[in-house]
Amino acid sequence: MDIKEKALEMHEKWQGKIEVISRAPIKTREDLSTAYTPGVAQPCLEIQKDPELAYKYTRRGNLVAVITDGTAVLGLGDIGGLAGMPVMEGKCCLFKEFGGVDAFPLCVKSKDADEIVRTIELISDSFGGINLEDISAPRCFEIEAKLKERLDIPVFHDDQHGTAIVVGAALINAVKCAGKKLGDITVVINGAGSAGIAIGKFLLNLGVGNLIMVDLCGIINRDDKYENPAHAEIAQLTNKDNIKGTLADALIKADAFVGVSKPNLVTPEMVKSMAEKPILFPMANPNPEITYDLAKESGAYIVGTGRSDYPNQINNVLVFPGIFKGALAVRAKAITEEMKLAAAKAIAELVPEDKLSTDYIIPSALDKSVADAVAKAVAECWTNSDCQ
Amino acid sequence: MDIKEKALEMHEKWQGKIEVISRAPIKTREDLSTAYTPGVAQPCLEIQKDPELAYKYTRRGNLVAVITDGTAVLGLGDIGGLAGMPVMEGKCCLFKEFGGVDAFPLCVKSKDADEIVRTIELISDSFGGINLEDISAPRCFEIEAKLKERLDIPVFHDDQHGTAIVVGAALINAVKCAGKKLGDITVVINGAGSAGIAIGKFLLNLGVGNLIMVDLCGIINRDDKYENPAHAEIAQLTNKDNIKGTLADALIKADAFVGVSKPNLVTPEMVKSMAEKPILFPMANPNPEITYDLAKESGAYIVGTGRSDYPNQINNVLVFPGIFKGALAVRAKAITEEMKLAAAKAIAELVPEDKLSTDYIIPSALDKSVADAVAKAVAECWTNSDCQ
Repeated sequence: MDIKEKALEMHEKWQGKIEVISRAPIKTREDLSTAYTPGVAQPCLEIQKDPELAYKYTRRGNLVAVITDGTAVLGLGDIGGLAGMPVMEGKCCLFKEFGGVDAFPLCVKSKDADEIVRTIELISDSFGGINLEDISAPRCFEIEAKLKERLDIPVFHDDQHGTAIVVGAALINAVKCAGKKLGDITVVINGAGSAGIAIGKFLLNLGVGNLIMVDLCGIINRDDKYENPAHAEIAQLTNKDNIKGTLADALIKADAFVGVSKPNLVTPEMVKSMAEKPILFPMANPNPEITYDLAKESGAYIVGTGRSDYPNQINNVLVFPGIFKGALAVRAKAITEEMKLAAAKAIAELVPEDKLSTDYIIPSALDKSVADAVAKAVAECWTNSDCQ
Repeated sequence: MDIKEKALEMHEKWQGKIEVISRAPIKTREDLSTAYTPGVAQPCLEIQKDPELAYKYTRRGNLVAVITDGTAVLGLGDIGGLAGMPVMEGKCCLFKEFGGVDAFPLCVKSKDADEIVRTIELISDSFGGINLEDISAPRCFEIEAKLKERLDIPVFHDDQHGTAIVVGAALINAVKCAGKKLGDITVVINGAGSAGIAIGKFLLNLGVGNLIMVDLCGIINRDDKYENPAHAEIAQLTNKDNIKGTLADALIKADAFVGVSKPNLVTPEMVKSMAEKPILFPMANPNPEITYDLAKESGAYIVGTGRSDYPNQINNVLVFPGIFKGALAVRAKAITEEMKLAAAKAIAELVPEDKLSTDYIIPSALDKSVADAVAKAVAECWTNSDCQ
């Protein structure tokens, strides 16, 4: 049976991948009086006096909403929130299985950014954090920015920041493995959507020396005009030498390539044109910009993809469970840039120096110890006042 | 330790009374590929083609939202949604424990009826049903009516209809026990808030001969003017003889009393003024309009309260888990009046004729078989086209 058939069969069998259970026993009269009326009035009154106690007396302290509008689901595009729910439920399973964090899936039936923001704001007291998911660019930037401004709980668009952090972690180790330094290298990112732009900004914060972003219109530079405000902004931050041209032009002498675009855009010739020991993270899913095998044959030193059937799987399941676990543990009011950097470094450090190799730059996506390390780094960063 | 201390201690220990768990195993690469990418794309695409398949491939088919705005929480009043969350979580526990229905608590941070309606509408695709909870009158009527109009999933304000159904069930058996007929009796309801009005309308539909509603302003009648549109409406439906006066006046020769008001409003003299074999359901919680003992001493034939420490506990936990279990089983698009009547009759019938007595007119609130009986009746009613 192929994976498509198996997935349908299993989804039918599961009847939903999440389940809401009771943590309180309800067997006796006394149980009812404690968990429900009249006893339940007490925690209500305590929370009314001090809203922070919601973290103590309700599930808020360990509960994240996974929210989509269904406009950019996986590689499927704008299929709508209802159709996107299997993905949201899957994400919630990963939150629980990897981070021990309860997560609940919600789809919002609107494409209006302000309406989505307002809806999330109005229900936000029910949660300890908001994980935005599969919302198309550039609306996702606006939605995230407005929510961060209005809410005092962590808001995190995983497609942007989860991806950026895991790419950052992989790049830290790849560069070390290649004997280079982040400050000296040129990284080319192909695909200036929400993930690409977030990766770009994050790598700059991580200390990458030169960054070149390429989109359908070619290399983003400071002479062209961009309607998309995110592209206009990124043009100012990247491309030190203000070069122009195509992806092929960008890759000449580049040290690393990050692809969040489409299959088969990178040719062997492009790989060969790169600097010594080229690093390639072609992450288009499930078919990368260049396959692991072809990239290696073409001279790539390190290759990481989104796929689990090749070495160096770059998967944000390494990130989001730990990010929220750590943030919730210290009741962080936000996920700051410093916390993200701490997360990337923590993931990179999980690969021991003596085991670091071209085919082992990042922990396995199934390694459930990663979330704890990320949570610890993120929580310490928040507690350290410099991060707030 | 008293119940207040115990409730606080246990709520702290539970760290929230609900938990979201994964129904899909996530241990191996294949697990990940089936529950998440790339396999998860298949159920997404199927739901995109046929939205009904969301009931098959996601949790929607067994999932209810328990939603409040926090304006009328228990007897605590307008304490806000966040402070109301322990009650909402408790309700979710009861849904799961009694009905096997997954329920998720949400509070909406708005008191504007239209904004609450719109918020719930926008997230409604995430659920198979909406249970409204602890929303003050008269806003609750408007919110429920608008949601029913806009959504094609069941919407049920439990404070109104759950209470009405369980009172109806108790009254069916109490009247039988007293050797009277519903069509011949006069019932006095004290408290014309959301529960009182819903009980009133429901008892009329159940066939009660004469109904008198009493509120702070006295007996509701057709000569006085009412600002509250619900009171104006109920004035037209009740009080056959258009009598006026106080609660004491209403109770003279009345067969039954239902209280959803305040403690100690009913005196022994009032009970003595009632018709033969008076039936009293003083349900103010935790302290009823007249205590079980005092009512009995004053000549009450049957007494039912909201309390678990006296006979005949009239508790809507007998209703809502089964209502939604049944509605979800047949994917009912609404909870119709006929389904509610079917539920009340099903609950009444669970007390065997030969065991029916003045102190046993309704099943125990802890009897977990009740939900199945209610679910069966409700589902059959919907499937029978007369109910739709």
